Amino acid sequence: MDKVTMTETIIASKLEKGLTWEAIAEKVGASPVWLTSACLGMNSASPEQAAAICDCLGLGSEVSTALQKFPTKIWEQTVPTDPLVYRFYEIMGVYGDTLKEVIQEKFGDGIMSAIDFNMEVDKEENPKGDRVVVTMSGKFLKYSAW
Amino acid sequence: MDKVTMTETIIASKLEKGLTWEAIAEKVGASPVWLTSACLGMNSASPEQAAAICDCLGLGSEVSTALQKFPTKIWEQTVPTDPLVYRFYEIMGVYGDTLKEVIQEKFGDGIMSAIDFNMEVDKEENPKGDRVVVTMSGKFLKYSAW
Amino acid sequence: MDKVTMTETIIASKLEKGLTWEAIAEKVGASPVWLTSACLGMNSASPEQAAAICDCLGLGSEVSTALQKFPTKIWEQTVPTDPLVYRFYEIMGVYGDTLKEVIQEKFGDGIMSAIDFNMEVDKEENPKGDRVVVTMSGKFLKYSAW
Amino acid sequence: MDKVTMTETIIASKLEKGLTWEAIAEKVGASPVWLTSACLGMNSASPEQAAAICDCLGLGSEVSTALQKFPTKIWEQTVPTDPLVYRFYEIMGVYGDTLKEVIQEKFGDGIMSAIDFNMEVDKEENPKGDRVVVTMSGKFLKYSAW
Amino acid sequence: MDKVTMTETIIASKLEKGLTWEAIAEKVGASPVWLTSACLGMNSASPEQAAAICDCLGLGSEVSTALQKFPTKIWEQTVPTDPLVYRFYEIMGVYGDTLKEVIQEKFGDGIMSAIDFNMEVDKEENPKGDRVVVTMSGKFLKYSAW
Amino acid sequence: MDKVTMTETIIASKLEKGLTWEAIAEKVGASPVWLTSACLGMNSASPEQAAAICDCLGLGSEVSTALQKFPTKIWEQTVPTDPLVYRFYEIMGVYGDTLKEVIQEKFGDGIMSAIDFNMEVDKEENPKGDRVVVTMSGKFLKYSAW
Amino acid sequence: MDKVTMTETIIASKLEKGLTWEAIAEKVGASPVWLTSACLGMNSASPEQAAAICDCLGLGSEVSTALQKFPTKIWEQTVPTDPLVYRFYEIMGVYGDTLKEVIQEKFGDGIMSAIDFNMEVDKEENPKGDRVVVTMSGKFLKYSAW
Amino acid sequence: MDKVTMTETIIASKLEKGLTWEAIAEKVGASPVWLTSACLGMNSASPEQAAAICDCLGLGSEVSTALQKFPTKIWEQTVPTDPLVYRFYEIMGVYGDTLKEVIQEKFGDGIMSAIDFNMEVDKEENPKGDRVVVTMSGKFLKYSAW
Amino acid sequence: MDKVTMTETIIASKLEKGLTWEAIAEKVGASPVWLTSACLGMNSASPEQAAAICDCLGLGSEVSTALQKFPTKIWEQTVPTDPLVYRFYEIMGVYGDTLKEVIQEKFGDGIMSAIDFNMEVDKEENPKGDRVVVTMSGKFLKYSAW
Amino acid sequence: MDKVTMTETIIASKLEKGLTWEAIAEKVGASPVWLTSACLGMNSASPEQAAAICDCLGLGSEVSTALQKFPTKIWEQTVPTDPLVYRFYEIMGVYGDTLKEVIQEKFGDGIMSAIDFNMEVDKEENPKGDRVVVTMSGKFLKYSAW
Repeated sequence: MDKVTMTETIIASKLEKGLTWEAIAEKVGASPVWLTSACLGMNSASPEQAAAICDCLGLGSEVSTALQKFPTKIWEQTVPTDPLVYRFYEIMGVYGDTLKEVIQEKFGDGIMSAIDFNMEVDKEENPKGDRVVVTMSGKFLKYSAW
Repeated sequence: MDKVTMTETIIASKLEKGLTWEAIAEKVGASPVWLTSACLGMNSASPEQAAAICDCLGLGSEVSTALQKFPTKIWEQTVPTDPLVYRFYEIMGVYGDTLKEVIQEKFGDGIMSAIDFNMEVDKEENPKGDRVVVTMSGKFLKYSAW
Repeated sequence: MDKVTMTETIIASKLEKGLTWEAIAEKVGASPVWLTSACLGMNSASPEQAAAICDCLGLGSEVSTALQKFPTKIWEQTVPTDPLVYRFYEIMGVYGDTLKEVIQEKFGDGIMSAIDFNMEVDKEENPKGDRVVVTMSGKFLKYSAW
Repeated sequence: MDKVTMTETIIASKLEKGLTWEAIAEKVGASPVWLTSACLGMNSASPEQAAAICDCLGLGSEVSTALQKFPTKIWEQTVPTDPLVYRFYEIMGVYGDTLKEVIQEKFGDGIMSAIDFNMEVDKEENPKGDRVVVTMSGKFLKYSAW
Repeated sequence: MDKVTMTETIIASKLEKGLTWEAIAEKVGASPVWLTSACLGMNSASPEQAAAICDCLGLGSEVSTALQKFPTKIWEQTVPTDPLVYRFYEIMGVYGDTLKEVIQEKFGDGIMSAIDFNMEVDKEENPKGDRVVVTMSGKFLKYSAW
Repeated sequence: MDKVTMTETIIASKLEKGLTWEAIAEKVGASPVWLTSACLGMNSASPEQAAAICDCLGLGSEVSTALQKFPTKIWEQTVPTDPLVYRFYEIMGVYGDTLKEVIQEKFGDGIMSAIDFNMEVDKEENPKGDRVVVTMSGKFLKYSAW
Repeated sequence: MDKVTMTETIIASKLEKGLTWEAIAEKVGASPVWLTSACLGMNSASPEQAAAICDCLGLGSEVSTALQKFPTKIWEQTVPTDPLVYRFYEIMGVYGDTLKEVIQEKFGDGIMSAIDFNMEVDKEENPKGDRVVVTMSGKFLKYSAW
Repeated sequence: MDKVTMTETIIASKLEKGLTWEAIAEKVGASPVWLTSACLGMNSASPEQAAAICDCLGLGSEVSTALQKFPTKIWEQTVPTDPLVYRFYEIMGVYGDTLKEVIQEKFGDGIMSAIDFNMEVDKEENPKGDRVVVTMSGKFLKYSAW
Repeated sequence: MDKVTMTETIIASKLEKGLTWEAIAEKVGASPVWLTSACLGMNSASPEQAAAICDCLGLGSEVSTALQKFPTKIWEQTVPTDPLVYRFYEIMGVYGDTLKEVIQEKFGDGIMSAIDFNMEVDKEENPKGDRVVVTMSGKFLKYSAW
Repeated sequence: MDKVTMTETIIASKLEKGLTWEAIAEKVGASPVWLTSACLGMNSASPEQAAAICDCLGLGSEVSTALQKFPTKIWEQTVPTDPLVYRFYEIMGVYGDTLKEVIQEKFGDGIMSAIDFNMEVDKEENPKGDRVVVTMSGKFLKYSAW
């Protein structure tokens, strides 16, 4: 079973059981963002995590095996059109150079790792309109000469 | 004075005085991320903010006027090659659909605003290597029929 | 049922019953533009709206469920070739900077929302040739510092 | 004098005199949208209109001649990144096929002209936040066989 | 029946009956260029024209209905590689600015309509090699202020 | 003198003398389309033609030499945005396959030459609106085996 | 039968019979390059050539008919990645302007035809390593005024 | 002196002295194609060759040094629009796969080198119109396992 | 059997037998990098190598024949998004010009062959984190005049 | 002084003094690859390294300061055309998926770092032709859940 079929199977089962990503994540003992990315085929799960996900959704070993495969991460390189996803690209376009200035001022010449990395999404209630809060954390990797 | 010359003037003066974005931001009473983005020409400042920035850097009214102009926000639409900025695009490519799933599960059909929006960068010390922490907060905007 | 099959099912049924988008919209109590966009898969309907659309077209619960799904809005990013649609892109190309000048002169630094937004199409009879009148209305969103 | 220099000259003079596009348009007796597009080099003015614009801004015959030249209308074919302009492209992406369905249902096989065309921008005050109202009107052109 | 299937059905029937576009056009009472473009799905036919085409080719009402549908005109925006078609793009690349100069010198600021338009192809016998003669005729549309 | 400077010099002189392309072509004894294309740098002139053009415009031998140079014909490969030029590309997009069908039906497998080629533009007066008539003539070149 | 199926059928039969392009070409009395290009769907064969090819490969009239169809020549416009084909594009990139200089110095303003054209491939044995020799011959076509 | 200035200097001197590439090549004792490519900056010359070229054109040591530099070979990756150069790309598009079939049938799995390579251009007189003959010769390089 | 099916068959069999590329390579007597590239369809195997691979994986003659076919090497020309593969492109982007400087300083004007070429991957254990070591070796090919 | 001017200054001085990258690297005590990349503006030097480079080339403090700046690493995202650099991209295109298979088989799900990374170039003498040997070493970074 490839990752695309795996994702379709998981989503169909999730809808049928009326589960949310948050509820599955809680049962599996993982962050909702990581859990969702693994189910969408963008990260690999350990055998225990894969078993817990399948147990929760009533799915068999084929899905469990597919969840453990190392993914080839492919996405469209043109800026995506969906308004929710586009706004994040707009933020990176507007603030990309700002992030470089501010991070390298704090840390020196290097980058924030996208591999040793995690991310959370929270809801902040607010009388003027609720706010989406996204928190990213990545290890700083320094350049050095040789 | 256009925004490009304004940015060059500000950066030259900042280097000469040995100031950091963080120090300027503190004196101006604004977030370092916002302050940097305004100085890089990606946001407009109020007359008071513009005056405070120029006062801090010893710059004249031409720069102050340029800081107040409404920017035309232009950036390369191809994915940028600088490793620090690229990693943020990679995160959006890997986690874009995950963010859509998780946010719309929490909030309904809509988007996180990139206009009514703010962002912070923090340094988290860690014995295995310090971490970059980026926090974004944007108002949720809901679709409705008409 | 995905949105593409939903749209095909709706259009087949609409042709068979000889209905127009305008007639369906009137029965549903919505604007023809919004109604058409929801049936083409570019907006989500409330349960009541979805039921009314299906009732009007003699369609079942699968279509109703598909109409309520939150869409992923995808379109070609190259300028479209169909002459009717191209002319609207030409208008945006010719008048885009003009709209920025005129709107920001009236409202300050910010944008017209494409989420809190509606649009109407009218026919204006005219002896020299009838005219198409398109009216768009979107909430103004202001940038502010943090 | 080419159109680019003409636009720079007009904008410098407008800033110096503290005029708005709306005020100039009123003196010239034209719509603010058309007036702005002519000053940005995207439409040609009649000798009378060009004279009125230059009179209002205290500019000479070189600018007047440039305003009368037939423009070559060039714009970036990649979707623009400025958030205000991008939102209009997003609207066309989301609602382009809807406009085709609704207009051709009302008028038959043909297009809305972008040449025999005009557009207005209005501000609608609203306690939940003011709204931008854009109205476009174009002659319907019908396809016919030969 | 969609336009693609319609075109395949018409071409199969045309080959089987050994007809030419020119012969069909003559029976239908239309120009060969228009007739071919309608059969290739790039123009819509009136009910009478559609009936005449189907009568001539021995095809049923499904094809006739498909011929009457308003087409969505889609083509590749990259320059086509087929040598016959490429040469026409080369002509437009070499002579595009020349056409703009010569037409606007004759007519003023405006365009040649591609909607109120027709085109013919003729064979001119010539001892040095026969020549292809293509004649295009389109209504001039003038820009005017508002 | 390169072709770009040559074109600028010719256009400046033509404006100053109040000449039209048509008038220059008549004096030179050439078609207005060819004459304009040579002056825009897209064709080379013979020494006699170059001398006649310069004589007519009061220009010296540098321009004459530049007119005789073999041009490198470069144009934008993205579809041009100017509405007059775009309409010709739209015609080629809509009717390209039709031209292939109709020409190869008449002539066999081959192409219309864009080198052994000429083109004229005429104005056809018409009470419903004047029409632009463009006539292209190119030698047919046949494919053959070897 | 379309050209793609035709090519697959020919290649399957060629493999089964253990024939080479060179052997087929010799039996048909044509150049191996032209023969291969016709079998790959990039040129049309005469009825006699088509019959000879099918006779040689033991194929029926469907393939023969397909070989006689006038091809629509389509290829990828991005530079191909296969190393053998890429090297020819590299040669054109490195030597394109050189070919223009050398050919037009010898022949005047014009081009080498790609229609009235033929090409051969030979093997030149060489102790330092055998060499591929490719010879192209095309009619010179001259530009002339009108 | 960079390669661009070097080429301009050589071409100016060549025009002034009324020399052809062929004449220079003969004096230098090299092929006209190689000589032209070195003068256009696409190949490096030995000190002796560089001295001979400069001697022939009356140019100094700066040009000689520039001719000896190892070039960075850059060209536009979009297909060029100049008709002479485009025809060679069309030939590669139409016959690229044919060349792969014919060469690998003769030589095995490998490529024709574009480095250990040479090319000649000849004029073949012909009563039906003179022909351009281009001959390319490159060493065959074989793939092997490891 | 085409190369795509061949690769799928090999990978399915490899998973079922629990073999690694390294183990297969050892049995076949080839480098793991070359062996993997041949199984992924990017190199051709000799009859003996193909037989050894199939023997090892329990596969039949169809797979063996497919392994011996000369591949057409196709890959995406846009920079790939998978993080492991992207990092190698980033290295080439950052160090491409450096490689040119350093190699041509050592060897003269020429290139490193990608045909007469091999590559190895090793694991270097390291207390600060294991390291990936990639070694490439290619024959130097020199440019020479003709 | 920006990085572009810095590189031009360094290269001019290096040519004048007749130094090689290898000689400068030896004096500075760094690898030739790293040293060259820093001088080409793709890495930042420490104050000591910058001083040593400038000392060796007889350059002042402006160059030293520029060498210490954190670079914004920009390169063309289209595949480069220079044959030496292109061959490395071809290697990545042909062997990219192979590298992913072989590295992840050895190390698990993760990547080779391009930040904690170094590279060497060596010359291997060989009677059949000298070989270029490139060795890359990067830390393995593992994905883990959160």
